[in-house]
Amino acid sequence: MPRYALLLEYDGSNYVGWQRQDNGASVQSVLEDAAARLAGGAPVECVTAGRTDAGVHAEAQVVALELPRELSPAALREALNFHLKPHPVVVLRVALAAAGWHPRFSAIGRSYRYRILNRRPRPALLARRVWHVQAPLDAAAMQAAAQSLLGRHDFSSFRAAACQAKSPVRTLDRLDVVRSGELVEIVADARSFLHHQVRNIVGTLKLVGDGRWEVGRVAAVLAACDRRVAGPTAPAAGLSLIGVRYQVDPFGSAAPITLHTP
Amino acid sequence: MPRYALLLEYDGSNYVGWQRQDNGASVQSVLEDAAARLAGGAPVECVTAGRTDAGVHAEAQVVALELPRELSPAALREALNFHLKPHPVVVLRVALAAAGWHPRFSAIGRSYRYRILNRRPRPALLARRVWHVQAPLDAAAMQAAAQSLLGRHDFSSFRAAACQAKSPVRTLDRLDVVRSGELVEIVADARSFLHHQVRNIVGTLKLVGDGRWEVGRVAAVLAACDRRVAGPTAPAAGLSLIGVRYQVDPFGSAAPITLHTP
Repeated sequence: MPRYALLLEYDGSNYVGWQRQDNGASVQSVLEDAAARLAGGAPVECVTAGRTDAGVHAEAQVVALELPRELSPAALREALNFHLKPHPVVVLRVALAAAGWHPRFSAIGRSYRYRILNRRPRPALLARRVWHVQAPLDAAAMQAAAQSLLGRHDFSSFRAAACQAKSPVRTLDRLDVVRSGELVEIVADARSFLHHQVRNIVGTLKLVGDGRWEVGRVAAVLAACDRRVAGPTAPAAGLSLIGVRYQVDPFGSAAPITLHTP
Repeated sequence: MPRYALLLEYDGSNYVGWQRQDNGASVQSVLEDAAARLAGGAPVECVTAGRTDAGVHAEAQVVALELPRELSPAALREALNFHLKPHPVVVLRVALAAAGWHPRFSAIGRSYRYRILNRRPRPALLARRVWHVQAPLDAAAMQAAAQSLLGRHDFSSFRAAACQAKSPVRTLDRLDVVRSGELVEIVADARSFLHHQVRNIVGTLKLVGDGRWEVGRVAAVLAACDRRVAGPTAPAAGLSLIGVRYQVDPFGSAAPITLHTP
């Protein structure tokens, strides 16, 4: 059976998350249902580079999909997008997957962006795309604190109780906090992340930003390896998966993927 | 009666436009209904810097509002935003209006931004925020054509039949077309615009962008002063009012308004 790599964009607001569940529509169920239409109704299973939680968005999620019949990548993209309507899930790119390629195990890096709208009035245009924080945030202090999390550490302080990873050790390659007008954007790069790791880090950095915590406390929280001493989990709406990296780009493009910034 | 200047942000997707109409909710009706709650139920009328059409958004609309009782600007903003929930309309700033100030007649400039998502797959994250154009657009050709529209001209070729302005002459101060990844953004500045002027210009520049028209044809269309020779009206969803300028900033801020870019 031919196997394809798919690059997906989705608005996660109305889904229970990536993974198929009994309690509502998931991105996976929407995609698999569209794919089943191309498989004569036979069930189709997708494997993802990383499951996103309910309300989390993706600008560049990567998925593997097997189909009982071969279609050209362009035809498969068009057919899937046709059957995905009107859901806010679209296939940006399709390629035949190389033998041995796996969307999760072959991945060597993931990038997430977290957006905070930092102003008194609630968002109108960015509703369900941001965490709305009213207290003025000091992005420079957040950036300073963020740097203490870079590198290889036991991230137990920022790990969800439900996290299924064998080890709490991860290597954070980038954690940048930048203000752009009313928006405070946090970009995080790592080979892989623990469950809720980015949202727990953002919820902690916010306590530095609003002045409740001193910058140095974040390093102490990391060292404590105790979830109870870190900040709360930031809301899902602010988070987007913006890229998955592989040794060899599965979409074979000469140019890197150009993300738009919605 | 105290008179206030309001700076508004709204998502125009679900409204019949700014203006109160019988056929559905308008931004004006939502705002006036919220204001009436602060006036003991007495009707309140708002005057705007410029009416936006159905589906058009605003990051910085300016409105004047009279209330039978005086509230501090901060208290008025909070109270209006409370009563505006859950509508995608928020008050960003409030100030007491100076004597003689009028949101429309005192305005010396308006800025609009138009966004095109230029790729094959439809938008998921930018649904209802962009015009989705699948044919590849040459933004540099669009920019070259746009420059022929700068300055003071009879813009009859780009004027809606329903336009109520006395004169078709307007002065276009800026018309920039810039590509940023999959987005093509057009920013237009003028003292004032004719009805549908920006959308008709964008619909025309798109014909240059997709190669159906040569760059030079746009100057000829302008000179013809005939709506029938220009391109179609671009969809409302791509358009946002991003600023209104006055000789004296009604919000009295030392710093210019920092717009976020959703």
